[in-house]
Amino acid sequence: MAVYTQISAEQLALFLARYDVGTLISAKGIAEGVSNSNYLVETTAARFVLTLYERRIKDADLPFFIALMEHLAIAGMPVPRPIRDRSGQALQRLEGRAACLVHYLPGVSATMPTVAQCRAAGQALARMHLATQDFRHHRANGLGPDWWSSTAAELSGRFDTLAEGLDARVAGASSRIERDWPSSMPAGIIHADLFPDNVLMLGDQVTGLIDFYFACTGILAYDLAVLLVAWAFPADGSAPHESKWRAVIDGYCSVRRLLPDEERLLPLLCLAASLRFLLSRAQDLFHPADGALVMAKDPLPFARRLQYFSAQLDG
Amino acid sequence: MAVYTQISAEQLALFLARYDVGTLISAKGIAEGVSNSNYLVETTAARFVLTLYERRIKDADLPFFIALMEHLAIAGMPVPRPIRDRSGQALQRLEGRAACLVHYLPGVSATMPTVAQCRAAGQALARMHLATQDFRHHRANGLGPDWWSSTAAELSGRFDTLAEGLDARVAGASSRIERDWPSSMPAGIIHADLFPDNVLMLGDQVTGLIDFYFACTGILAYDLAVLLVAWAFPADGSAPHESKWRAVIDGYCSVRRLLPDEERLLPLLCLAASLRFLLSRAQDLFHPADGALVMAKDPLPFARRLQYFSAQLDG
Repeated sequence: MAVYTQISAEQLALFLARYDVGTLISAKGIAEGVSNSNYLVETTAARFVLTLYERRIKDADLPFFIALMEHLAIAGMPVPRPIRDRSGQALQRLEGRAACLVHYLPGVSATMPTVAQCRAAGQALARMHLATQDFRHHRANGLGPDWWSSTAAELSGRFDTLAEGLDARVAGASSRIERDWPSSMPAGIIHADLFPDNVLMLGDQVTGLIDFYFACTGILAYDLAVLLVAWAFPADGSAPHESKWRAVIDGYCSVRRLLPDEERLLPLLCLAASLRFLLSRAQDLFHPADGALVMAKDPLPFARRLQYFSAQLDG
Repeated sequence: MAVYTQISAEQLALFLARYDVGTLISAKGIAEGVSNSNYLVETTAARFVLTLYERRIKDADLPFFIALMEHLAIAGMPVPRPIRDRSGQALQRLEGRAACLVHYLPGVSATMPTVAQCRAAGQALARMHLATQDFRHHRANGLGPDWWSSTAAELSGRFDTLAEGLDARVAGASSRIERDWPSSMPAGIIHADLFPDNVLMLGDQVTGLIDFYFACTGILAYDLAVLLVAWAFPADGSAPHESKWRAVIDGYCSVRRLLPDEERLLPLLCLAASLRFLLSRAQDLFHPADGALVMAKDPLPFARRLQYFSAQLDG
């Protein structure tokens, strides 16, 4: 949540001259995104967000992310549409960093989403899944099953410092997921990180899905599981809000019906989603990135979700 | 340059309901201001900046700053106009902090101002001086002559760690300023910190004077001296850009003519302005504020200016 790379107004005016987007009226560094620098840019023509890619995001992955945002925008989804310059390029270099100018989207992120907002998020995710059926690119999930096993093993012995008994619960969840992970499920492009702060809304309407930098190829119902652990629990709660849980699923199913197998496996997928965010937050806490200005997020809420879904699967 | 206080969309929507400004469309934390949290807020009616006052700014000073911005806005100056709520209040509380909603201004800050931009800045400063002739409030300069003496004394012995011989030059400048400081000069409200990043421009037009949180009662020509040391030197240069120097003065004098005394004393006032920024930057470097996320600015460019004006006064 910081601006890592400073761009002067003079540099920015020169940069914008590559595009057919009018001339610069205003530019503000915005505190958005964990590992990119973002500027809200206004020109005589429109408003944009300029992203400079810092840490974490590999340059090699950028064509995938940009193609995905463009594909979704063309399909009518409310996502930041990458702007092409006069030569047709969307991916740029600026100040030694990869950079992309995208359309600005209105809306704010709910901190405590309502039931109606949960339903809208479920619908939007399902629409994204349908809209990418004909998207031809592929990207492996760097924070998927292999990463869960290896990271759970790597950090083992340290979880008990966060909560008593957590080491055993993480090991148990990790084994269970390895053992029961489905081999064949409807797959496609998943957002993989659709937390409330990555959804812009006006009232109950979704006006933006943003931050596609974890998007990858994966099991569609796992993406729904991420949505459930991110939206349907009280911030630090150990059990979901029943009505929000139902609203996320109903919203999703109103657009894309779940197969019986997807429905049956949902608790396991939610366990995996809880483990994924527990692990990445624990990793950030134990090994903060060099020079990161970012406050590590608390892993404990996801330890509680892990416990909840483990109990469900045991019961 | 960070957002210290997080405001949720839900809190912000409630806050905006105090005003007659429409409903929330968008809010982005912006990396602006050294010690405040700022949000760029868009509603169905207009765009605003919401400032939450953190560190450094005393609550007791806020009525002065807000009255000053309102006075200047009414006088037609391009400054952020404070918005009053339905009960007529501009100064608010939000999340335990003093807060103020102001009108958003277009424009960007030049990093390397051109000669034409230097002239425009000089004109704008003189207009501000004229527009506050009938402003009845008073605020002492907390970073004025008394502070220069005491801070130069407090940090003495440490300047040589920045540059060889700097301790002697600071002591010499401080004594000279104490000895020669004028007792009677045209005074009024001064901005006291009108660096290029506090001026918004579109091309050569000033569209905004911002960050009035050092504004105070003081010698008007000292404010011009601040402008000269801030605008007319190359970033790390030891001598001014002749044409920019002239442009700042010509711009200022085209609106408000300098008295012979003001003109004569300008080198001493520039020495004082150089000392003031050298001292505050040295202080930030030697005694960083607790938990400050702000990178201390380099004091050396102002050590070079100090040397330049000392030599001028000796010559």
